Amino acid sequence: MQNCADEWIRESNRRALLERIRQESPVSRVQLAQELHLSKSTVTDNITPLLREGIVQEVGVGLSQATGGRPPVLLKLNGAYSYIAAIELGFRAPLFALADLEGHILHRLTLSVPDGAAYPERLKAVCEKIDELLSCGGIGRDRLTVIALASPGAYSRHEGRYLLNPEFEDWDFSRFRDDLGRCFQTEVMMINDVKAATLGELHQGAAKGFRNIVYLSCGVGVGAGIILNGRLYSGTSGSAGEIARVFVPGISGPLRTRVEMNALLQKMRMQAPEATRRALRKPANRINFEDVVRLWKAGDPFTRGCIRDIAVVLGKMAAALVSVLNSERVVFGGEYLVFQSQILDILRKTILREAFDPIPVVGSALGKDAALQGLLSLACEAILDRLARST
Amino acid sequence: MQNCADEWIRESNRRALLERIRQESPVSRVQLAQELHLSKSTVTDNITPLLREGIVQEVGVGLSQATGGRPPVLLKLNGAYSYIAAIELGFRAPLFALADLEGHILHRLTLSVPDGAAYPERLKAVCEKIDELLSCGGIGRDRLTVIALASPGAYSRHEGRYLLNPEFEDWDFSRFRDDLGRCFQTEVMMINDVKAATLGELHQGAAKGFRNIVYLSCGVGVGAGIILNGRLYSGTSGSAGEIARVFVPGISGPLRTRVEMNALLQKMRMQAPEATRRALRKPANRINFEDVVRLWKAGDPFTRGCIRDIAVVLGKMAAALVSVLNSERVVFGGEYLVFQSQILDILRKTILREAFDPIPVVGSALGKDAALQGLLSLACEAILDRLARST
Repeated sequence: MQNCADEWIRESNRRALLERIRQESPVSRVQLAQELHLSKSTVTDNITPLLREGIVQEVGVGLSQATGGRPPVLLKLNGAYSYIAAIELGFRAPLFALADLEGHILHRLTLSVPDGAAYPERLKAVCEKIDELLSCGGIGRDRLTVIALASPGAYSRHEGRYLLNPEFEDWDFSRFRDDLGRCFQTEVMMINDVKAATLGELHQGAAKGFRNIVYLSCGVGVGAGIILNGRLYSGTSGSAGEIARVFVPGISGPLRTRVEMNALLQKMRMQAPEATRRALRKPANRINFEDVVRLWKAGDPFTRGCIRDIAVVLGKMAAALVSVLNSERVVFGGEYLVFQSQILDILRKTILREAFDPIPVVGSALGKDAALQGLLSLACEAILDRLARST
Repeated sequence: MQNCADEWIRESNRRALLERIRQESPVSRVQLAQELHLSKSTVTDNITPLLREGIVQEVGVGLSQATGGRPPVLLKLNGAYSYIAAIELGFRAPLFALADLEGHILHRLTLSVPDGAAYPERLKAVCEKIDELLSCGGIGRDRLTVIALASPGAYSRHEGRYLLNPEFEDWDFSRFRDDLGRCFQTEVMMINDVKAATLGELHQGAAKGFRNIVYLSCGVGVGAGIILNGRLYSGTSGSAGEIARVFVPGISGPLRTRVEMNALLQKMRMQAPEATRRALRKPANRINFEDVVRLWKAGDPFTRGCIRDIAVVLGKMAAALVSVLNSERVVFGGEYLVFQSQILDILRKTILREAFDPIPVVGSALGKDAALQGLLSLACEAILDRLARST
C-alpha cells in the first residue's frame, strides 16, 4: 500500500490538475495550488511536462495577487492536442461531431443510411463521413485520438447477443466498433445511447450538480439512464436501465409495445379517426413521426390522446424507478421531448401519486445533443486519464 | 492533497489491518504485511498501539516460516474490548442479540410487546431487555459501545415523516433512537430492517461474494435491499428499495395491498372456502400467520393458491428490479421465506419471461437472523472505523 502510494499520488495530482484546467481554464498555478490543496512546487513539477508535451498552454497573464508580486501566467488545455469523433447512432440519421480536447464541437454532419443497406455499405458510409469531418477541420487521421459511438440496444448475457429494436438490426455494433478501430487505427469507445445522453445531461444539462438521477428516454426506443452517487451506474453487464421489456400496470404487453415510436405510428395508422385522417393529408398507412408531431402541434385530439396514453404508462414506470432508486429528479428526453409540454405534467402527477417519495420532473436541456455531449465527456476523460498516466 | 496523504495512509493502513485481523484471525504480522503489501515495520508500528489498548490480542504462535526464524506470534481481535446490542424491531416480537467486537452472538432474547402498548411502556420494555442481555453476559453498561436497531419503514421527505405500516404505528423510531442513546449513554445506529437484512446476506449469507444484488423481502412488509458494486445503496434520503407503494401489472392497487401479511390474512378470512375453514379448526376471522403456514404445509389448495398469487405479483416486481439494476442474483427473504419451495420457482419463471437479462433466484441463507447479522456487521465496521482514527 505505502509502496505504490507515491506513484498513485503523482498520477492523481496530475489527473486532478488536468481536470481543473479543463473546467476552469484559464487558470493560474497559484489558483490550482490553492483549490487542490497542493504546494506551489508540486503544481509546477506536474505542469512542466504537460506544457512541454503541448497538452497544456500558457495563454496570457492574470491579475496580480493582493500580496503583490508578478501577475500569474494563465493556463488552459490545448484543444488542438487531440481530436475526438463522436457519433450518435441511435437515430435513423446518425449525428456526427468533431471536437477538440476541450470538448468544443468544431463540425457536425448527419448521415442518411438507406433502409436495408448492407453492413459493408454502412461501414463505408460511416468511415467516409468521419474522413469528411476531419477534412472539414483540416485534421489528419493521426490526430484523431478517440472515436466515441453511442448505439442503441444492450448486451444480454442470457441470450449471448445484443438485443436491438428491429429498426437497428441491419447494424452489427460490436463488429462495427472493431472495424472502425482497424480502419482509423485508433481507440473506439462504444456506449449505449441512453447512457451517453444521461452522461451529457449530468455534465452539461438538466442533471448537472445532482447525485442521483433517473434519465427517462422515449422515442424510437425506450430506456432509462441511472446516475447514482454522481456516477453512471451500468450494472453487472452494462444493461442497467433496460426497461423496454418490463411489464407495467394497465397495459397487456411489455413497456416497449405501448410507448415506442413504432407502436405510436402503428396506432395512428390503425385507429386514427376521420378528422385526424383529413388533417393528415396523406394515406394513414404512410404516416411518419414528423406527421405525428405536426398533428400534435395542431392540437389534433386523437394524436394528443395517443401521447397522453404513452405519458401515463411512462409515468407508472417513472414512479417505480423513483421509488426503487430514491433519486433527486427525473430528466425526460428522447425524440418525444418535442411533446414535453404535455408529457412532463402527466409524469409529475403520476410520480406524485405513486412514488414513495415524489421528486421533480424536467425536460432534457440538451435535446438531440445529449448523447453527443455525453460521448465527448467520456472521451475527454479517457484521454485525460491516459495523459495523467503517461506524461 | 499531498499534505494530508500521510495521515490518510496511516489511518487506512490501520483500518485495513483491523479488517484483515477481523476476517482472518488468528493471523501473524508477516502474513498481514504480505497480504496488505505493507512493510513489516509499518505493520509493527500500527499493531503496537492496538495491542497496548487491548483492541488486538496475541493468542499463541504459528508455524515457522519456510525461511526459518522464530515461529510468528498470532494476532486476533479482542472480542471483549467492546460489545454491541443489536435489535430487530421488524417483527411483532423483536429479537435482541448481544455480540462482542468479533461479531460473535453471546446471548439472544425476544420481547413480546403487547398490542397497543404506549410509547413509554415500549421504551421501558426495550431498555430492560437490553439490561437483561448485558447481565446475561456479565457486562456493565460502560462496555456497551453501540446499540444497533433495525426498524421497518422509511423516511419520506415529501411527507416529512417516517412512513410505517399500521402494525408499527405505536413505535416512534426516531424518538426511540434518541431516548435509547440518552438512557445508555452510547451511540445508537438505526437502519431500515430490509437494508439490515441485505447487509447480513451480503456479508455472511446468500449474497456473499456478489457485487450487484437485489434482496427481496416479503412478510409483514414488502421491500427491496439493493447492493450495487459491493455496497448497500440507500438512495438520496435512505428510501431506496421502498417498493411497497409501487403499482405492479395485473393488480389494481399498490404492491403492498396484495402481498403483505395483512392482505394475505384478510383474503384468507374473507374468501377461504369450506374445506379450508374446516382444516383451520377455528373461526376464520381469528386466523393468524401460524395458521396460514400450517395450512400451507398441509397442502391446502386455497392457501397454496394465495401464496402462488403473491409470488406471481412479486415475480413481476422482481423482473422489473432485475431489468433496471442488471443485478447478479435475487435473494428472497422475510417471513414468507417459509414458503420458498413454492415461491422461488415462480419468481424464477417470471424473471426468465420478463427481465431483460434473467438471473438466479435463491432463498435467504440467514432467515430470521439476516437483519441481526447485518446490524452486527454495520456496528463492527463503525467501531473499527473509530478505532482506526483514534488509536
